[in-house]
Amino acid sequence: MRQSQLFGKTSKTAPSDDPSVNARLLERGGFVQKVMAGVYSYLPLGLRVLQKIENVVRQEMNAIGGQEIFMPSLHPKESWVTTGRWSGLDVLFKIKSRHGHEYALGPSHEEVVTPMARPIISSYKDLPFAVYQIQTKFRDEPRVKSGLLRGREFRMKDMYSFHADAADLNEFYERASAAYLKTFKRIGLDAIRTEATGGTFSEFSDEFQIEIPTGEDTIYICKNCEVGKNKEIFSERATCSRCKKNSWRASRGSEVGNIFKLKPKYASSFDLIFTDKAGKKQIVIMGCYGIGISRLMGVLVEKFHDEKGVIWPEIVAPFFIHLVSLDGGQERVGKFAEEIWRALQKQGHEVLYDDRELSPGTKLADSDLLGIPLRLVVSPRTVERESVEYKLRAGQKTQLEKERELSNYLSKL
Amino acid sequence: MRQSQLFGKTSKTAPSDDPSVNARLLERGGFVQKVMAGVYSYLPLGLRVLQKIENVVRQEMNAIGGQEIFMPSLHPKESWVTTGRWSGLDVLFKIKSRHGHEYALGPSHEEVVTPMARPIISSYKDLPFAVYQIQTKFRDEPRVKSGLLRGREFRMKDMYSFHADAADLNEFYERASAAYLKTFKRIGLDAIRTEATGGTFSEFSDEFQIEIPTGEDTIYICKNCEVGKNKEIFSERATCSRCKKNSWRASRGSEVGNIFKLKPKYASSFDLIFTDKAGKKQIVIMGCYGIGISRLMGVLVEKFHDEKGVIWPEIVAPFFIHLVSLDGGQERVGKFAEEIWRALQKQGHEVLYDDRELSPGTKLADSDLLGIPLRLVVSPRTVERESVEYKLRAGQKTQLEKERELSNYLSKL
Repeated sequence: MRQSQLFGKTSKTAPSDDPSVNARLLERGGFVQKVMAGVYSYLPLGLRVLQKIENVVRQEMNAIGGQEIFMPSLHPKESWVTTGRWSGLDVLFKIKSRHGHEYALGPSHEEVVTPMARPIISSYKDLPFAVYQIQTKFRDEPRVKSGLLRGREFRMKDMYSFHADAADLNEFYERASAAYLKTFKRIGLDAIRTEATGGTFSEFSDEFQIEIPTGEDTIYICKNCEVGKNKEIFSERATCSRCKKNSWRASRGSEVGNIFKLKPKYASSFDLIFTDKAGKKQIVIMGCYGIGISRLMGVLVEKFHDEKGVIWPEIVAPFFIHLVSLDGGQERVGKFAEEIWRALQKQGHEVLYDDRELSPGTKLADSDLLGIPLRLVVSPRTVERESVEYKLRAGQKTQLEKERELSNYLSKL
Repeated sequence: MRQSQLFGKTSKTAPSDDPSVNARLLERGGFVQKVMAGVYSYLPLGLRVLQKIENVVRQEMNAIGGQEIFMPSLHPKESWVTTGRWSGLDVLFKIKSRHGHEYALGPSHEEVVTPMARPIISSYKDLPFAVYQIQTKFRDEPRVKSGLLRGREFRMKDMYSFHADAADLNEFYERASAAYLKTFKRIGLDAIRTEATGGTFSEFSDEFQIEIPTGEDTIYICKNCEVGKNKEIFSERATCSRCKKNSWRASRGSEVGNIFKLKPKYASSFDLIFTDKAGKKQIVIMGCYGIGISRLMGVLVEKFHDEKGVIWPEIVAPFFIHLVSLDGGQERVGKFAEEIWRALQKQGHEVLYDDRELSPGTKLADSDLLGIPLRLVVSPRTVERESVEYKLRAGQKTQLEKERELSNYLSKL
């Protein structure tokens, strides 16, 4: 992609008044644009990051047998009345149509997925299974803050599992937990599985927390096991559920996922039953599993940045290579850059090519701001040596590489 | 995918009361499930079709330089007041939050994309460009009908183009039109570009109509050119805009796309201006381009079905091969089917493998209902000959093919 044609402009100052690192850098870099408090548009660079995160999540959910579905955002009021959440969930957006229909705007999908399973489950042979979706969610938050970390509209992956008994739920719950840790690890984050309350869903839940100084939660992490407890359930005498020791360090965490054992909670509201092996009617046992996709994008920026801009992990970076032409008006430099660009594309690399007519200082500052993993600079100096200058965004030193050795270099990365 | 584990069950009767072909077959096949009037969930089979349609659309929009973005569903009331559509568009869903904020729930995105472009456009050098998204849309329809053809919540691809003058818009408009015809052609549909009124957007528009007997529009098609006029702008003396002749046949069409020249309409509401080459301020000229993605899925079913079920075009089929094991309780048949399944997967084919313990009649009827292009049957008869029976869903005759020749056969398809 030629940067001169890219929809999105960098800016030296963040247009919005949100002081969080992720809001400032994502808006300045032209990844997102704030539409209003807690509501963002994703520009091409930001959408590429979002889609890459979604694809990793999708792969890992498929790997544990999750089947992708897509449920609507408009939910019938009746289903939310059935579970008591029409009046019980204060962040629920409610819509009244001009014809008198009333809808909830989905903040989560238990009220849709549970009745959906009714015509599909009749016997124990129909269990277990898990379905998930990647969908926009809505919450009527009293206060929004911290860019993508807490919005009124955001992207979520939500999975729901259905089981014949608690033992089967427990087994899948641990597999889902392992898949979560793997998902976060793949995008560069060491998540800490953290015990917490279950809110309206269940007695307890497990959160997946990323340690960052600006994290909204106080968590206590076992010094032996790297598992945690949220402050809300922590007591001085708490022992680690894994090693049984009482040796904690306090930290700040930002939650990127959470998993709940719903047990019969929603299934009993909707009379979701099956016939067991003995021919007896039983209530289905459920679990639910969320990952905040857009929140994850914000947390990545909070975790991976320096004073100059974002430093994207390669797997979610909008492009792998940022090719920057500093031609200083010299035609042979521009021509050399175009050649390199074509060669890189031919090799199948994802390249953002900065062909804009701007000063070297501006272009290099923009490159740092965008945080693409590998920067290749073509300038009069490099052209003289038939080379390009390369620098990893996460590293310090720049080096020269001969053009003909470049593909060799890239293949070794 | 093993059909025994697939989330979704076929049924002999359509659960909903919608008499349209697409609603009946899509619900019976377990592609979609009706949540309430005009609102559907997509089950794994249906979502695969939807995603395949989206990918073709995405490829063709990228091919004409469209850049993918993602805008929110919650829109600020102020923007809709600015364009006069807060009170002027009767199908607009409105939301009032418990904190007194008012939002529109996006039925289209001119009110977001136009102000979004303001910080990005300043000079003629920033033009032209086109951005698009694939997003859920909401319309407070008084009456919903015909399954996926008219809903309150549906999937759309909407593109917006920005130009310095009308000539540039006209040029892009024709490129977009050609891309639309190509998109529909690739998924098996001969769309007819049909002149129509522009509604609230513009004086005229061009619709892309698919001829089906159940189509909701009456259209007149030039007998020479295969371009059309919608009844709403047709007169007895109308001449074809291409060949200038007056020779029409009346037909029924279902609209799957429409394109509009907005000209300065929305840009002037939001003061979207640029500085031209002479240093003068000018209003940006815009176009907008929609494709009803979920509607297209419904139209495909209306077009491609028989009394037994859907007949998916290969490019959007949920799977390419339906492998059906009719083992009649014989272990060696099941084993042979498993072997074939593994071999097909190894070759990279998308296979739905019907490993369910059901009667041959039920399984073959389900196969016809699901409409997967190629059916491979393994039965005691075929195992004896070390072969499988193959049948194209769109064809009549079944044939036997030796197992070892199967990959050869598949590579020739």
